Amino acid sequence: MKIYFTFQPRQDLIDPLLVEFPNVQFVFHAKLQEEELHNTDVLVTYGEDLNEERIQMATNLKWIFVASAGIEKMPHQAIHDRGLLVSNVRGIHKKPMTESILAHILSIKRALPFIYENQQKGEWNKKAQLSELNGSTALIIGPGAIGSEIGRLLQAFEVYTIGCNRSGEEAPYMNETHKIEDIKSVLPKAEIIISMLPSTANTKHLLTYNHFKQMSTDAIFLNFGRGDVVATDVLIRVLEEKLIRHAVLDVFEVEPLPADSKLWKMDNVTISPHFSSHSSRYVERSLEIFKPSLRKWLNGDEDLENKMDILRGY
Amino acid sequence: MKIYFTFQPRQDLIDPLLVEFPNVQFVFHAKLQEEELHNTDVLVTYGEDLNEERIQMATNLKWIFVASAGIEKMPHQAIHDRGLLVSNVRGIHKKPMTESILAHILSIKRALPFIYENQQKGEWNKKAQLSELNGSTALIIGPGAIGSEIGRLLQAFEVYTIGCNRSGEEAPYMNETHKIEDIKSVLPKAEIIISMLPSTANTKHLLTYNHFKQMSTDAIFLNFGRGDVVATDVLIRVLEEKLIRHAVLDVFEVEPLPADSKLWKMDNVTISPHFSSHSSRYVERSLEIFKPSLRKWLNGDEDLENKMDILRGY
Repeated sequence: MKIYFTFQPRQDLIDPLLVEFPNVQFVFHAKLQEEELHNTDVLVTYGEDLNEERIQMATNLKWIFVASAGIEKMPHQAIHDRGLLVSNVRGIHKKPMTESILAHILSIKRALPFIYENQQKGEWNKKAQLSELNGSTALIIGPGAIGSEIGRLLQAFEVYTIGCNRSGEEAPYMNETHKIEDIKSVLPKAEIIISMLPSTANTKHLLTYNHFKQMSTDAIFLNFGRGDVVATDVLIRVLEEKLIRHAVLDVFEVEPLPADSKLWKMDNVTISPHFSSHSSRYVERSLEIFKPSLRKWLNGDEDLENKMDILRGY
Repeated sequence: MKIYFTFQPRQDLIDPLLVEFPNVQFVFHAKLQEEELHNTDVLVTYGEDLNEERIQMATNLKWIFVASAGIEKMPHQAIHDRGLLVSNVRGIHKKPMTESILAHILSIKRALPFIYENQQKGEWNKKAQLSELNGSTALIIGPGAIGSEIGRLLQAFEVYTIGCNRSGEEAPYMNETHKIEDIKSVLPKAEIIISMLPSTANTKHLLTYNHFKQMSTDAIFLNFGRGDVVATDVLIRVLEEKLIRHAVLDVFEVEPLPADSKLWKMDNVTISPHFSSHSSRYVERSLEIFKPSLRKWLNGDEDLENKMDILRGY
């Protein structure tokens, strides 16, 4: 039984694995080496180093554990055709990403960029408009595990939360939930609009110029799902026309965001380089999900945490 | 009955006052004019425009409503000698100030200064160490109304909260509470240390170099109480020696912070110009406290919300 990690955990995280699973052969490389694939049973990867050819090389492969939430860069069809089990670390991003989102919202409301700027200039300047988060309304588009955690914390800040999902079925920590197809009617109610949508055929360019026109001119739009939920040229137009107050973007249609993108220079945009889920505790957390899954799998139980349908995308 | 406001509320906030209290003469000036004082019954002020002489001029004065929490700049003895009723808006700072404090903590944990800096440079740079708030421990020194609100929200972020107050009696939203005299024993446990202490004879220079030596080198110190809880030269030494990770200062021994202060240039300090309680909803909130108090007072009831002992200072 060989388990091949295509990234290198810290030694203090490796040691307990070796102790707990003495009959497993663990191989760790900072980067995938193709010659290791053929006799690998379980692949533990960030999901960006696979292609169809490599799946075919890995003739023994049965299970891919993706230590990431996004699987766009994986060869979906090849994995599906081989009938490989795929599970990921969906829950892992919940806390760090939610904290990033709350950080950005509070930073704008409480004028932190203004504070940092004036400190650089050495200026004692109180002339900022500080507003408050409490009492506002937030719309969370795609309230899955992360969206619900965002809802929970926003509610702690006395924010009214509205969820939008495909079914319109009640989602946790949402004061109300609507179907995505009815989104236009709820957009004007929210000062905070957060997209957590994954990239699928259904979500691509889902938000149009007309959706942004429905938003309050005081609205803050945060995209922490995937960049293609809105076309980049639409987003730039919306921000140039100041249809909304501010956009905080962690994801983009093209990543890294090209150096010549207009977005970099706009003062009503925050560019976060798609790392809002990063955390000094990331690998530790991945292994906390991996270990019980491995225990189950070694016992022949394939009903793993975060088991996913590779073609459906979640 | 004359009520004199020495600041100018927006007209949409004045109108309901005039409707609700038709028998009261309201006078509003953007700045105190001494000739208005002699026949004023109730003075509504930010508390920075009074002195002993003016108290004596106001021969009719019975009640001072201070639309602020700090009363350091008021002529305490003269007010006490006249037996004037004083009440303030203590609770008003609770939400905006707590949101500022959470904003600063999350901003540091989730690398927002790094994000803003790299955006200015137009650089897609993921090389920041993002850490997490959840799972950490916070020490709140002086957990009054604001401190408890901070505790409530920190607990929502799954932070363990320790309060320190004079009595050591249990405070709301604190997992444990200790006496301030025992602070040294709890300082090493916290990664987040927040001072909300007012300025009194007992709190002046309460935190010494040795206290900071007790803190974790990873600790974030936030002072949102009063600047003299720690001597400025001690604070500078602590930060130069990197005894702690970062300090967020909203208050200073001398305000405005002098242009030549070393603090401005230190990269492990955030300088907020004593405005963390500011809010676009400030006057509206003050009047929400003032109106029921005025109703009570007109009925001869002097047991007003936030009635204070001017000599004791709270």
